[in-house]
Amino acid sequence: MKIDVYATPDSAKEKALKDRIVVVIDALRATSTIITGLYNGCKEFIPVIDIEEAVNIAKNYDRDAFLLGGERNAQKIEGFHLSNSPMEYTRDVVEGKTIIITTTNGTKAIRKASDAKKVIIAAFVNVNAVSDYIRKVGEDVAMVCAGTDGYFSLEDILVVGAIISNLKDKLHVKLDDLGIVSCYLYENNKDKLDDILKGTRHYSRLARLGFEKDIEYCLKMNAAPIVPLYRDGVIRKIKNLRD
Amino acid sequence: MKIDVYATPDSAKEKALKDRIVVVIDALRATSTIITGLYNGCKEFIPVIDIEEAVNIAKNYDRDAFLLGGERNAQKIEGFHLSNSPMEYTRDVVEGKTIIITTTNGTKAIRKASDAKKVIIAAFVNVNAVSDYIRKVGEDVAMVCAGTDGYFSLEDILVVGAIISNLKDKLHVKLDDLGIVSCYLYENNKDKLDDILKGTRHYSRLARLGFEKDIEYCLKMNAAPIVPLYRDGVIRKIKNLRD
Repeated sequence: MKIDVYATPDSAKEKALKDRIVVVIDALRATSTIITGLYNGCKEFIPVIDIEEAVNIAKNYDRDAFLLGGERNAQKIEGFHLSNSPMEYTRDVVEGKTIIITTTNGTKAIRKASDAKKVIIAAFVNVNAVSDYIRKVGEDVAMVCAGTDGYFSLEDILVVGAIISNLKDKLHVKLDDLGIVSCYLYENNKDKLDDILKGTRHYSRLARLGFEKDIEYCLKMNAAPIVPLYRDGVIRKIKNLRD
Repeated sequence: MKIDVYATPDSAKEKALKDRIVVVIDALRATSTIITGLYNGCKEFIPVIDIEEAVNIAKNYDRDAFLLGGERNAQKIEGFHLSNSPMEYTRDVVEGKTIIITTTNGTKAIRKASDAKKVIIAAFVNVNAVSDYIRKVGEDVAMVCAGTDGYFSLEDILVVGAIISNLKDKLHVKLDDLGIVSCYLYENNKDKLDDILKGTRHYSRLARLGFEKDIEYCLKMNAAPIVPLYRDGVIRKIKNLRD
């Protein structure tokens, strides 16, 4: 199985994603939030780029059927129901709902992968579930990290490393340089992710803004063990391999 | 001092390079070759993108004054004097000459940085000289790796790590995520660079093509301890800090 890794959506050419299972990662916080919402029983997420687009889509739904979620500058968007904090996506809030979400980096990365064979959403909170899914499907993979404002972001690379580390124990994987680096970084820091992340850009910005609880949750391995699939503009929980 | 790191030329926005000392790295092999040629007494390098451009520039020079160097698909270009192997750029061949060079990744990276304040050429062979220069100049730095065909290339990242590792012992450096990663990777592998590089894309391709001697030389720390400066289309050895 070939695995290619892209540190930012811009570094991934659409052509390179076309025949792959694409795994999109924005560990702090968008994909952690989406995975958590689906784990807690929401019906689906609709990831969109713009606030305006989100508000327009919401008009198609009954008032009780949807929630608007996301962030700009890490903060809740005015008039939206939910921010980009996974802690807000509890069962009593999200169960049965369609959530229209827009975030600075994560939703862009998901939309970039639209033409891929399959698009899977990953973060630390579902590392094992995603690894198992990839192993069972058995096709070549492209990992697309959301990064931060177009820059390499270490937390996403560590999620990639955790998935690769799982997979390479069970099958032969052919890695590119960034895959080798991701796996090396994860395996040498897995018991102290906090330590190596402390000085990094996005982590320290969120910590400065008071989101320590979100960070702590987003680094919890396998806290929400499901696999979300993005298809036809909508993200839903995978029920079986034929999805 | 702020240090930002870009894994490929495309990931570096021109604007982000403008007010920086830009360090361009293509350890296997273009920047190692340029540094070595200058160390061995050649007058200057003119890095160009196209073979045609190289041939046209050569027309301005007397027959004895220039050499054409470079590669396509890692091999010598038809009609050129020299390939991209640093082993060919010996004193008896290059002394006093202008060398017009075109390579697949390296010369593109150099040209991308054209608008920067200063552009410095680095590789393992001049790590300490470059680190000393940066420390003395004391301005913010952008490290631009050539990568391989648009992809993240580990050997370049390890050169970045070696320079950062030198600098951070002597002054306070503010690193982005890729800077943290580069330094970590270098410091944890400096005594066995070969081991971590063996599975990587460009290294293993060159090894397959029979360039083991080039690889061995390109990994030699400080084998050619000079600092090349790219200015007005030409790369020359820096003689003093005011250059």
